[in-house]
Amino acid sequence: MPEYKAPLRDVRFLTDEVFDFTGRYEALGATDATPDMFAAILEEGAKFCEQVIAPLNRSGDEEGCHFDNGVVTTPKGFKEAFAQYVEAGWNGVSSDPEYGGQGLPPSLGLLVSEMIGASNCSWGMYPGLTKGAMAAIHAHGTVEQKNTYLPRMTSAVWTGTMCLTEPHCGTDLGIIKTRAVPNADGSYAITGTKIFISAGEHDLSENIIHLVLAKLPDAPAGTKGISLFIVPKFNLDANGEAGERNAVACGSIEHKMGIKASATCVMNFDGAKGFLIGEANKGLACMFTMMNHARLGTGMQGLCLGETSYQGAVRYAQDRLQMRSLTGPKAPEKPADPIIVHPDVRRMLLIMKAFNEGNRALAYFTAQLLDIEHLSQDAEERERAGNLLAFLTPICKAFMTETGLEVTNHGMQVFGGHGFIREWGMEQLVRDCRIAPIYEGTNGIQALDLLGRKVLGSQGKLLMGFTKLVHQLCLQHAEHPQLKAQIAQLAALNKQWGELTQKLGLAAMKNPDEVGAASVDYLMYSGYITLGYFWLRMALVAQQKLEEGAGEKAFYETKLATAEFYFSRLLPRALSHVAAAEAGSEVLMRLSAEQFAL
Amino acid sequence: MPEYKAPLRDVRFLTDEVFDFTGRYEALGATDATPDMFAAILEEGAKFCEQVIAPLNRSGDEEGCHFDNGVVTTPKGFKEAFAQYVEAGWNGVSSDPEYGGQGLPPSLGLLVSEMIGASNCSWGMYPGLTKGAMAAIHAHGTVEQKNTYLPRMTSAVWTGTMCLTEPHCGTDLGIIKTRAVPNADGSYAITGTKIFISAGEHDLSENIIHLVLAKLPDAPAGTKGISLFIVPKFNLDANGEAGERNAVACGSIEHKMGIKASATCVMNFDGAKGFLIGEANKGLACMFTMMNHARLGTGMQGLCLGETSYQGAVRYAQDRLQMRSLTGPKAPEKPADPIIVHPDVRRMLLIMKAFNEGNRALAYFTAQLLDIEHLSQDAEERERAGNLLAFLTPICKAFMTETGLEVTNHGMQVFGGHGFIREWGMEQLVRDCRIAPIYEGTNGIQALDLLGRKVLGSQGKLLMGFTKLVHQLCLQHAEHPQLKAQIAQLAALNKQWGELTQKLGLAAMKNPDEVGAASVDYLMYSGYITLGYFWLRMALVAQQKLEEGAGEKAFYETKLATAEFYFSRLLPRALSHVAAAEAGSEVLMRLSAEQFAL
Repeated sequence: MPEYKAPLRDVRFLTDEVFDFTGRYEALGATDATPDMFAAILEEGAKFCEQVIAPLNRSGDEEGCHFDNGVVTTPKGFKEAFAQYVEAGWNGVSSDPEYGGQGLPPSLGLLVSEMIGASNCSWGMYPGLTKGAMAAIHAHGTVEQKNTYLPRMTSAVWTGTMCLTEPHCGTDLGIIKTRAVPNADGSYAITGTKIFISAGEHDLSENIIHLVLAKLPDAPAGTKGISLFIVPKFNLDANGEAGERNAVACGSIEHKMGIKASATCVMNFDGAKGFLIGEANKGLACMFTMMNHARLGTGMQGLCLGETSYQGAVRYAQDRLQMRSLTGPKAPEKPADPIIVHPDVRRMLLIMKAFNEGNRALAYFTAQLLDIEHLSQDAEERERAGNLLAFLTPICKAFMTETGLEVTNHGMQVFGGHGFIREWGMEQLVRDCRIAPIYEGTNGIQALDLLGRKVLGSQGKLLMGFTKLVHQLCLQHAEHPQLKAQIAQLAALNKQWGELTQKLGLAAMKNPDEVGAASVDYLMYSGYITLGYFWLRMALVAQQKLEEGAGEKAFYETKLATAEFYFSRLLPRALSHVAAAEAGSEVLMRLSAEQFAL
Repeated sequence: MPEYKAPLRDVRFLTDEVFDFTGRYEALGATDATPDMFAAILEEGAKFCEQVIAPLNRSGDEEGCHFDNGVVTTPKGFKEAFAQYVEAGWNGVSSDPEYGGQGLPPSLGLLVSEMIGASNCSWGMYPGLTKGAMAAIHAHGTVEQKNTYLPRMTSAVWTGTMCLTEPHCGTDLGIIKTRAVPNADGSYAITGTKIFISAGEHDLSENIIHLVLAKLPDAPAGTKGISLFIVPKFNLDANGEAGERNAVACGSIEHKMGIKASATCVMNFDGAKGFLIGEANKGLACMFTMMNHARLGTGMQGLCLGETSYQGAVRYAQDRLQMRSLTGPKAPEKPADPIIVHPDVRRMLLIMKAFNEGNRALAYFTAQLLDIEHLSQDAEERERAGNLLAFLTPICKAFMTETGLEVTNHGMQVFGGHGFIREWGMEQLVRDCRIAPIYEGTNGIQALDLLGRKVLGSQGKLLMGFTKLVHQLCLQHAEHPQLKAQIAQLAALNKQWGELTQKLGLAAMKNPDEVGAASVDYLMYSGYITLGYFWLRMALVAQQKLEEGAGEKAFYETKLATAEFYFSRLLPRALSHVAAAEAGSEVLMRLSAEQFAL
């Protein structure tokens, strides 16, 4: 497994030089998040991730989780590492101080999650799901529910889950069969089977708080009749401590392609005691609180696994000797040149680097929107941030996971045959990443969310909130001596983005299938332009630093070269996506279902 | 694991209606390959693959191969299936009758290999490697060597290997360390370690004939100093039977991402007795005889795994109920519509279908070139076929494996979360396919071979051999009432192909790195146009059949819709590849090796 080192220089480039994290924290009144605190969290977080959980990544994949008669045991070392995580208070970095959190801004929590996910994606699922469940309880729970569950979840002495999927439905939660029947004491008896429940059962925490979608006896059909329930693994005793076992049990764990150290559980609810959270039949809204959190988290997995893969690939390309450079030997004293001399190896590395650093910029920008949404006193600013967040969430989830999967595949390819061998760890990153385009709403669902609900559903308003930013930046720097060609390229695409959207909107009014026919290509197209915007922002900063003679010349020149690579070799992919998005639905819909089998 | 059914209707569409296999056999004097014989082999081959080896695919992946102190045991059932394969004479379908083969044309052998690879990719590696070794012995061995080894390899009572890679070199075979020291009796003592040896050791055959690259004591440095040796696992006794054990042993087997039932061995040669095959120091040429065979075989793996994945995905999409169609319920009597009603699911299925059927056409066309090369009495025709074969081989290997990997990933995606679960078998197809872009020369190496050696190395002659075919077809049908738009699109790309090549050729004269900078995008660009040519040929036939009222209207209409899908949604990907290929090497080469780590 490639050794993971937290890429703190690149992190600081974004947080300090591009996005001014601590300056924004101050403006938002997050006075605890001082530059010193910020630096300390990054450094200590890096240490924990590099030294404690990264070493468990390869062994966790080999060992996997164990299931024995309802009991799930995580791989060797996971429990001890989790105890250290709890002990150090990492889970509560950006949680509400009222329940024991440190109250730092969400963006700082995201930086910690990034290092965790890059060190050990499977291990990171346990705290990751817990935070989603905490978000739902925090947003929709009663005061009593918050006081009951949040303190122990903040510390991660208790963990959480999201129980949505059932054997016959994943995307289509309107048709769930799990039932909630009212008990005399105000609680509910929950009965049904949930599948694909990450962290549904394990040995890391003293209790597991399941958030379960179910239907009340009199619920309307479809998504308007689903409600959300809190179902603890252990019922709480009079003191609020984990008491006797609730009627919920793990029936089995899945054997999967990747994230093998993350327990993916079948959960059987057999009249388990549950408590309604939020309003009856309004469970979908509560669920989206968790889902939006999880979608950003899933997008981050693309970045995290891509980063680790890149670190491995660069080191291998610097070390591995094979063939001579096409322009003559570069290491004549050695039997062959290191493969990093070969243009095609560099091409793969630069694709990886350009996606990783571009995705990181997108993620951090999005994290700052979360900060504003949580902390700003200005309602208008909160609304603007909320709209951008709604627009960018499906792009983060789908574009970052598609490109993350591409990145991890390139990383494997750089290793040649060794990439296919398990002990090198490069193929594990591909397997671990392969779930990210699927879960928390497949990328196809994200694309429908983006084009159908967010863009066309807002009459283009949510799109314009972002294209305006692109337009303003391009306008402001249109005559930039070094970057004007890239700026012109981006400005033209930004204009085309609006035109394409209008065209699709008109077509969709006549035929709703036009949305589904165009949506994935539209999302990828949007993602390439979005990353173009962030690469321009990074290039502008790097260019300015060079002109200021700020030092670290090699770093800023690398940033500029990667930006140029992005504009010349990756952004043109938008061309083929726009062509596909414009191709229309007729050719897709013409065939009968039976004809597909001919 | 999706149930595999040999796609005989599509096979026959190509062999009978597009390429006229049996007519060509007759013209080439392959009189044994009558239409009846052809049909019988397809049908019996399908039966064997569907009933005997397909059922071992999932279990073989779960069990893997076993290694115990030099002994390798294949998964349960493999040995029995191999015995049936030997018994039925499948291995010799297209082998030389002089050594016990049936002497049918190579293209017919390829049809059988396709069904084997689609049923069970790992199992197919054992006969696949054997055929590569047979080809090398047949082309370069002495009469005695052929008589000694080929009869038992033709029956597959003995199997073969290709021992090229060593721990420090895979691509760069000029720096191998394995040594061959002459013995007094004219044989050689071979000493060294080879890795990644597929079928290096196993329990399927009575002897294993290794073809081993090694260096003679006085060999020149680099690739001009490598020689090829025959090294049997068991030395032959006076009767030519497997006798005492030779000094070659399997040191371990690799733990891999996929093709787990294929034994990938570390082979230790410890003064093993070997026999020079071909001329001393001319081993590279002999090796390419095997490699070209293996490259086509590897390309086929992309098609094979893609086909099986497609079959699984279509069935799942027809059965799985989830959400309602965007245009209103299509199965109102059910709780939800089958997911094949959704445009994006259809998009994924049509990508799979268009690549599979396009790749199949490319493969069969290439197989017909092999027929001509082997059987034609006309030297000029042989040369033309050989040139086209040289040009198309890297495209088959790289384009078919890249797109095969994409296809298997879409197949997994159609299954949603279930695609990630091992028992469904869809993820295995991705893992099995992931090696294909790597081995037998990475796709990066194929791209250098195509652009550098084949196209520019021939001053464009090899390219023009193919673009002329495209040009003629487009010209001939330029005014086709239904297809003229697609024909114009293809003709324009075909013209651009020549222009791009000229541009790259000029740039490469000034700077050889321009070749490596453009090569992979050039190959993919070439692949999209190549498949466009075959999709046009298929569409022309389908259109004609419809006009003739030949029956099977739904089949031909499906073919036309898939062609239209290819032209409108896949061929435009050429746009982004041409942009990337033209971007030049400077941005790739600017950074120092150290800067990549910044």
